Amino acid sequence: MQPGRLVVLTGPSGVGKGSIMAHLRATRTLPCWLSISATTRPPRPGEVDGQHYFFVNEERFLQMIDRGELLEHAHFAGKRYGTPREPVEEHLRRGESVLLEIELAGARQVKIAMPEAFMVFLAPPSREELRRRLTGRGTETDEQVAARLAQADVEMAAESEFDAVIVNDDLERASTELVDLIVGRRPAGAGPAAHKRT
Amino acid sequence: MQPGRLVVLTGPSGVGKGSIMAHLRATRTLPCWLSISATTRPPRPGEVDGQHYFFVNEERFLQMIDRGELLEHAHFAGKRYGTPREPVEEHLRRGESVLLEIELAGARQVKIAMPEAFMVFLAPPSREELRRRLTGRGTETDEQVAARLAQADVEMAAESEFDAVIVNDDLERASTELVDLIVGRRPAGAGPAAHKRT
Repeated sequence: MQPGRLVVLTGPSGVGKGSIMAHLRATRTLPCWLSISATTRPPRPGEVDGQHYFFVNEERFLQMIDRGELLEHAHFAGKRYGTPREPVEEHLRRGESVLLEIELAGARQVKIAMPEAFMVFLAPPSREELRRRLTGRGTETDEQVAARLAQADVEMAAESEFDAVIVNDDLERASTELVDLIVGRRPAGAGPAAHKRT
Repeated sequence: MQPGRLVVLTGPSGVGKGSIMAHLRATRTLPCWLSISATTRPPRPGEVDGQHYFFVNEERFLQMIDRGELLEHAHFAGKRYGTPREPVEEHLRRGESVLLEIELAGARQVKIAMPEAFMVFLAPPSREELRRRLTGRGTETDEQVAARLAQADVEMAAESEFDAVIVNDDLERASTELVDLIVGRRPAGAGPAAHKRT
């Protein structure tokens, strides 16, 4: 059996990764297994262990790091998040493709762990549009928006590391492009290395 | 032959990683091979390719990422820096220990790539002391210092991921502690996993 394809979706904060994932879930058009993260944050009402997250304590999380059981991990607001390696590899072995939707630092860790991963960068139509989206949330101070925009500039510079670039100017088109990339239908709007694995 | 030990030294910006490295070099007491980074920045006067850095162009660097030839990589001020995997593995195979001195994001990538790495965290004596050091450089605006301090807080939270913690309150003592860890003389001031590999 041909192993599945590991696809990593990342992009700067505010670019709309979450919206695309929500759209694919709502329309039930995600053609692959979506990786489940491990986290040390407590479950929220309605969240099911092994379905929304693997809920683990700090000690177990550190053990997973130490044993190489994670493909990537990060720290946000005092809580840890990571991608367990074993379920990803199991799905790939069974011939299923797997999608990871993660931040840039995590994406780079996955690429280091599994160089065969197909790396997709979700880009804003323009820096101005990204600024508008970051400001439009209305939940953050000017300083926070400025900090996120500076961070986004750094992250945008990573675009060239990726196998494919999807410009998120239209939710539905961008979602379709991602689906096409997952099933390997076409190389799509492409970074330097886009052709070799499709 | 017993393979060498891979030791990764990291810690928040301003904690004094560079000073310790300079001290070990000046006193010729570094008991291992110090990894050489690849970079896309041009050589400065006096810098020798293959000795201070491997100088490569952007295209070659992206190829190294894509082929899994790097243990970690990062982007600073528009230039790329990374650790080639092959020289590290070659020295380890020959029974030599290897030291990497890198930023936290890179350290996590190395741990993902080589879970057997021995991870050392260099910590400031206190947050106040780190603030004093970051301010004391005098080359940065208040906003820049504040941003670095916020970044340092995030990085300090990673301490528990490490096999050993060295508090940098005294340059000479901290340097000696690092040397002891590299040669495996003792588990030293230790994180949760400090005992198992020493």
